[in-house]
Amino acid sequence: MYRLYDFLPSGNGYKVRLLLTQLEIPFERIEVDIRMGASRNEEFLQKNPNGRIPVLEVKPGIYLSESNAILIYLSQDTDFLPADRLEAAYVMQWLFFEQYSHEPYIATSRFWMTILDQADQYRKELLQKLEPGYAALSVMEQRLTEHPFLVGDRYTIADIALYAYTHVAHEGGFSLEKYPGIQAWLDRVQAQPNHIEITQI
Amino acid sequence: MYRLYDFLPSGNGYKVRLLLTQLEIPFERIEVDIRMGASRNEEFLQKNPNGRIPVLEVKPGIYLSESNAILIYLSQDTDFLPADRLEAAYVMQWLFFEQYSHEPYIATSRFWMTILDQADQYRKELLQKLEPGYAALSVMEQRLTEHPFLVGDRYTIADIALYAYTHVAHEGGFSLEKYPGIQAWLDRVQAQPNHIEITQI
Repeated sequence: MYRLYDFLPSGNGYKVRLLLTQLEIPFERIEVDIRMGASRNEEFLQKNPNGRIPVLEVKPGIYLSESNAILIYLSQDTDFLPADRLEAAYVMQWLFFEQYSHEPYIATSRFWMTILDQADQYRKELLQKLEPGYAALSVMEQRLTEHPFLVGDRYTIADIALYAYTHVAHEGGFSLEKYPGIQAWLDRVQAQPNHIEITQI
Repeated sequence: MYRLYDFLPSGNGYKVRLLLTQLEIPFERIEVDIRMGASRNEEFLQKNPNGRIPVLEVKPGIYLSESNAILIYLSQDTDFLPADRLEAAYVMQWLFFEQYSHEPYIATSRFWMTILDQADQYRKELLQKLEPGYAALSVMEQRLTEHPFLVGDRYTIADIALYAYTHVAHEGGFSLEKYPGIQAWLDRVQAQPNHIEITQI
């Protein structure tokens, strides 16, 4: 059985939990409290030298890290990853967009404000995150006002990856009020079979 | 023929140039001077709403962005992407590591210091990039002291993606002196057939 090293409030961990659940693949979850440094001790660094969750223990002693790499691995040959080469490439495009242009602003702000509850201490940094975070949301909005999902016309791991932190953007101080396309898409994602909430296990 | 929207000093653009050259695929290159805002005008935003190079015009009017997504797309069914599912997943792991944990520190520092030539203006920001940048190099070193390449025992797009900015890390103020594993790997990458240098076209 897969073992997932995870931190329950993490959107990156949630991506993997959500896909495993929707694929109906059973897994064991190990909680790693990153606030307490549990992803930086020697034992954990053996699993991921980069000191981050989630980590999927694919088979005993074989560890895979990077949430979006895990999504790709698990979705091979399933409906969650298009078989068409160009559509699969667009899934990858959104996955890298998520990690480079979205997560560092929206997820990091949420981490400071809601997970650490230190909005005051990070006030200046939070302000700097607003412009690039909203820019990322605008790129999504442009796609989602014209299309039901991020790639093609159906739900893929690209939607899972972007949903993870977008649906809790308000916990990082981002309002989705001006993004009706995103709001409608959030509803479509939540309506998928076997959907679970971020802290639901 | 593929058309690549590119900026010659860019490591992200170089990844695609290098792979296309090593695959012996001809392409047309369009220079986009990102220093002059050429990736943020309306015409370019039609190609990539996220306003970044490189963009590959896969066929007329069909644009793919995100350097590492382009690498995956081009390397399908070639020796540059392992056929084994787990090995392919490790390639993805390194590609996301590159965009999240390496590029924002090492490439961004190089951009400020060498491309913009504004080391003084960015002195404070450059100092903040040092610790996470060296942390990324240490993760690579750990792998490369024990293995010839990042995944398996041969050259893949993971090596191309990490080579792009690692081999010019000094242009961002990073010394590789304490990373003999990385240094030996740089030599192995440079010794691959059809290798080209970063600004060689």
